[in-house]
Amino acid sequence: MADSSTSMRLRLPLLCIILEVILIILFGALVEYDHDTHPKEWNKNRTSSTNDYKNEFYYRYPSFQDVHVMIFVGFGFLMTFLQRYGFSSVGFNFLIAAFSLQWATLMQGFFHGMHEGKIHVGVESMINADFCTGAVLISFGAVLGKTSPVQLLVMAIFEVTLFAVNEFILLSILGANDAGGSMTIHTFGAYFGLMVTRVLYRPNLSKSQHRNSSVYHSDLFAMIGTIYLWMFWPSFNSAITHHGDPQHRTAMNTYYSLAACTLSTFAFSALVNPEGKLDMVHIQNAALAGGVAVGTAGEMMLTPFGSMIVGFLAGTISVLGYKYLTPVLESKLKIQDTCGIHNLHGMPGILGAVVGAVTAALASPEVYGEGLQRVFGEVETGQWKPESKGGFQAISLAVTLGMALFGGLVTGFILKLPIYGAPPDTHCFEDGLYWEVPGEEEGHNELHEVATPNEVEKLSS
Amino acid sequence: MADSSTSMRLRLPLLCIILEVILIILFGALVEYDHDTHPKEWNKNRTSSTNDYKNEFYYRYPSFQDVHVMIFVGFGFLMTFLQRYGFSSVGFNFLIAAFSLQWATLMQGFFHGMHEGKIHVGVESMINADFCTGAVLISFGAVLGKTSPVQLLVMAIFEVTLFAVNEFILLSILGANDAGGSMTIHTFGAYFGLMVTRVLYRPNLSKSQHRNSSVYHSDLFAMIGTIYLWMFWPSFNSAITHHGDPQHRTAMNTYYSLAACTLSTFAFSALVNPEGKLDMVHIQNAALAGGVAVGTAGEMMLTPFGSMIVGFLAGTISVLGYKYLTPVLESKLKIQDTCGIHNLHGMPGILGAVVGAVTAALASPEVYGEGLQRVFGEVETGQWKPESKGGFQAISLAVTLGMALFGGLVTGFILKLPIYGAPPDTHCFEDGLYWEVPGEEEGHNELHEVATPNEVEKLSS
Amino acid sequence: MADSSTSMRLRLPLLCIILEVILIILFGALVEYDHDTHPKEWNKNRTSSTNDYKNEFYYRYPSFQDVHVMIFVGFGFLMTFLQRYGFSSVGFNFLIAAFSLQWATLMQGFFHGMHEGKIHVGVESMINADFCTGAVLISFGAVLGKTSPVQLLVMAIFEVTLFAVNEFILLSILGANDAGGSMTIHTFGAYFGLMVTRVLYRPNLSKSQHRNSSVYHSDLFAMIGTIYLWMFWPSFNSAITHHGDPQHRTAMNTYYSLAACTLSTFAFSALVNPEGKLDMVHIQNAALAGGVAVGTAGEMMLTPFGSMIVGFLAGTISVLGYKYLTPVLESKLKIQDTCGIHNLHGMPGILGAVVGAVTAALASPEVYGEGLQRVFGEVETGQWKPESKGGFQAISLAVTLGMALFGGLVTGFILKLPIYGAPPDTHCFEDGLYWEVPGEEEGHNELHEVATPNEVEKLSS
Repeated sequence: MADSSTSMRLRLPLLCIILEVILIILFGALVEYDHDTHPKEWNKNRTSSTNDYKNEFYYRYPSFQDVHVMIFVGFGFLMTFLQRYGFSSVGFNFLIAAFSLQWATLMQGFFHGMHEGKIHVGVESMINADFCTGAVLISFGAVLGKTSPVQLLVMAIFEVTLFAVNEFILLSILGANDAGGSMTIHTFGAYFGLMVTRVLYRPNLSKSQHRNSSVYHSDLFAMIGTIYLWMFWPSFNSAITHHGDPQHRTAMNTYYSLAACTLSTFAFSALVNPEGKLDMVHIQNAALAGGVAVGTAGEMMLTPFGSMIVGFLAGTISVLGYKYLTPVLESKLKIQDTCGIHNLHGMPGILGAVVGAVTAALASPEVYGEGLQRVFGEVETGQWKPESKGGFQAISLAVTLGMALFGGLVTGFILKLPIYGAPPDTHCFEDGLYWEVPGEEEGHNELHEVATPNEVEKLSS
Repeated sequence: MADSSTSMRLRLPLLCIILEVILIILFGALVEYDHDTHPKEWNKNRTSSTNDYKNEFYYRYPSFQDVHVMIFVGFGFLMTFLQRYGFSSVGFNFLIAAFSLQWATLMQGFFHGMHEGKIHVGVESMINADFCTGAVLISFGAVLGKTSPVQLLVMAIFEVTLFAVNEFILLSILGANDAGGSMTIHTFGAYFGLMVTRVLYRPNLSKSQHRNSSVYHSDLFAMIGTIYLWMFWPSFNSAITHHGDPQHRTAMNTYYSLAACTLSTFAFSALVNPEGKLDMVHIQNAALAGGVAVGTAGEMMLTPFGSMIVGFLAGTISVLGYKYLTPVLESKLKIQDTCGIHNLHGMPGILGAVVGAVTAALASPEVYGEGLQRVFGEVETGQWKPESKGGFQAISLAVTLGMALFGGLVTGFILKLPIYGAPPDTHCFEDGLYWEVPGEEEGHNELHEVATPNEVEKLSS
Repeated sequence: MADSSTSMRLRLPLLCIILEVILIILFGALVEYDHDTHPKEWNKNRTSSTNDYKNEFYYRYPSFQDVHVMIFVGFGFLMTFLQRYGFSSVGFNFLIAAFSLQWATLMQGFFHGMHEGKIHVGVESMINADFCTGAVLISFGAVLGKTSPVQLLVMAIFEVTLFAVNEFILLSILGANDAGGSMTIHTFGAYFGLMVTRVLYRPNLSKSQHRNSSVYHSDLFAMIGTIYLWMFWPSFNSAITHHGDPQHRTAMNTYYSLAACTLSTFAFSALVNPEGKLDMVHIQNAALAGGVAVGTAGEMMLTPFGSMIVGFLAGTISVLGYKYLTPVLESKLKIQDTCGIHNLHGMPGILGAVVGAVTAALASPEVYGEGLQRVFGEVETGQWKPESKGGFQAISLAVTLGMALFGGLVTGFILKLPIYGAPPDTHCFEDGLYWEVPGEEEGHNELHEVATPNEVEKLSS
């Protein structure tokens, strides 16, 4: 099934080894332990062991591990819904995430982690690297089944770089709030991926259409991914907020947003089906939109009440998107979005950005008290005004959309070069092209020897 | 397969949307951030950032996430053991849990979280809401495969409400200890569910009997649920105990109880089988009984020694229950208990209540030192006596049983109304009634065209 | 399928019950709560609740839970790759882990946890017990599919005991560092298991060869195990290091080692395949070698740079081992290593020991500052020299290899006695021998009635 044009024999090893060697060299030259991971720094002037609990590790490591599970199990298994693409879904997810988190450490460090020419790393940089990886995996969802692992690694190189630039503009220049990444992660990852898949449009993809669907067990594997993403989203949104009340509040707002989102997802999934049957695609994806949509405002005084409204809306637009918008995107705009990332990350990400801008514009010292400047850092300058803050949040969304679409366009054309071993139209959504695929079970194999109706006819005639 | 009588087209969306709108309105009117999630409260008189580590978030959020995994992955996948009910098991579990945790926030807040007319929420209320949800999911296990999602939501409305009332009586009026919920969660959820399934008795359920069993892969999916429940049960039992030694001790007692329980489960599973073969039903369920049975006494001085004895007993009675009691319950008492919740939650829950009463009655300041009043709060009054404490624990069990049986009876009759689109006897344990179910894999589909022996006979004659 | 020679009817219950009774008696006689779990000790001289956050529970419990997931889900599901051995893989893993952690508490407590004749237990001893269990599960990987549960329990009795002795020699006598267990866990578990499987060599194992391989879905279940092991390995290596910077640093070093290892695994998996296709066996196993290989040096100043080099090497030798060494081990040395533990734990474990010795030999007060003695405890004596430290690390590796090979030899001969109900050569890798195995799905069952080509021939002739 694998001929030389799609063989990974040399392409993949060469790319992986070159990339890893470059990473190792750059890490050797640039990366250093930060204050909380360095034995000399942390133990300077140590008098007793009493304040080890103040190490950043204890504030953030449990959240980091939850985020880590979302990246590797959540995204990986969510995409196993395809009937014969489970190895690739989990496996390529694994590969590009392992690469991206290393590359992101460098790119993000370069833009906002430099100390005297060195990149300082610790649990916070690990969370940020995982976050950046999340954006790449969102884009992966759009091109799932239609790209070789080499293409995916090349996409990751560019996307991680642009992610870091966009994040720098938003957080450092515009001073935007986006702890859970409605803009930096979800909107960016979605529109970047949609533009890439647009450029890589395959007019004859219908030749693989019979494999572009789920089977019973693959849908259950995908639910493993869904449920882990859903459960740990509160940790995702709160992972890099300030210590204390912001982390606590963000987790809780996300918890309620997701719960409300789940109810609207079930409601609209049944409503849009002629027989009133639930659709696994909706449950697997739209129920998560509530987490995306409070990614910016979650740390603010959104309140559980506000969170639930946002979550309910997010689930609704996401289901409606799967039902009515995705087919149009494909037929009219030639955007073949395998996982429907526009419905899970694109629209809910924009919703999240808008909710964030509005919530920020409504902020006041009366409501936040002394906690105001811990949420909106720049208050310290004394010139902070909620309205202008809201404006900067809105500008941030526009910048993100621009960066994502432009970056996806360029990256798409780079990925179109015929050198990466992309699958032919006839073998998309098929593990066998890049993986040694085992046979079926013993019992099943025997079945292959049973007579087909044709044989029976022949014999009896 | 879905005719109008079971269609969810209007019923489910209508109920979901109405419930969520009510929830949102009540949250808007009643729910407020608590001290540790409110920026104004938490940062009042803030001098430095040094004591953010005292935020309740850092004491409890890791435990909360473990509990959250048990609720959504643990319960959800444990019930996927049925061959064609995986979508419903994980999906309906997801739906009713997402609803219940919101409703529980209100009901539990109403009974023991009111502050000047407002319900204060934070990580502790989130854990309690998840706990209450656990009881509903236990009851779900009894009626699994025989109820529509609308019925399940209606059941959740009533069960959550009664749970909160019972919890209030036990914890606030009787001053009982029940950190891990042997009584409030397991005993209550089990007997409530058993009574509901008794009222909903289906004499002709045998028409669906061929689907009321597992297949090879569904048993493996169920083991995902089992193992997660087993691993995180120490977090479950310790999640809302006092900070410090009680949380630490409870987790460890549960750890040893479960380990001992696993050995007795394997022992008796092989022993009761004529060929000495292990039964997946026992391993999936009875191995967890050790967690249930130390739910009350886990925070006390049960010691690892005592925990192991209790765990060993719990595994034993649970396996024997599956083997000898469940068939009798169905044939004599007309209780069709799909998951055998009587063996996993019912009997071990009662065992846990009794162990709790005895351990409390044996408590003394000599053993607990100054830690006594942190376990048994009312010591502060100075009139505390271990014997009377043991008595109140025993009374709590009786109250719980009464509330559960009465509540289940009433709820059962409400669920019997023919308006919820319940499945007919011929289509129980079948996803296809409420879900769009994909076909089998490409390869498998071809098999459907092979000739059956009948056809061969016809052809050759 | 189960005749009396392999029946577990009496053997397994008898062994389980006797072992658990012995455990309970020994726990009753010897085990006590430690300072942080005992209400009297912890609350002695309590003035306010302000320092509960110093309880060991909050430093280590999240790490413990991650380790716990690795032991039960990680190891359990990793071994489900065989087509008809999923019940046994997860189930026996569950059984022997539940036994081993209890037995390890006693054995490890006996050697390095005694306080006035009592074994003190808390979250640290729980982590250590899980660690010891890990070694047993590694050995299980070598004999997977070829042993009865009774044999496995007997193996665990001996292996846990020897593990504790070896650990005592390394950590207490030689003063070695091995926080993540490159030597004590991985090297020991691997060579112990390899020697056991050598002694249990089955010349006619080819009779079961058709079941000694994976199917599509079993490979996906195995990936659940792989990904959980990969994600939580940072927690594993850092779980029992000192508070503060060592725990933080170890987790981060492991994170980068694993990421680099994943890239070399994909690279070499494609490279060694004639068609350039990826092999699931490599991805499932070799990608984890990076965690093993930084198990000793992870807490030292290995730096992310060094970690990535080590991880890259570990992935490389692991893939090459699967491809070229495993077949030779079987044909020349008669070592039938079902899971290839030599490639995942054996060689990477030795690599980790060597890297640890070198990194220790390079340690200096200039680099570690006041943190030096928190990593290399014996500095306190004032006579500490990095070169001799490196030497002791190297001696520790030699001791471990000796203990493992000798212990495995003796245990292998004990396991060879014909009294444990071991599977015959014709029924290895088969759940049906020890488990009630359900039929296939309804749809599939019907297929069993289709005519085979033979029947068709008969009929038509």
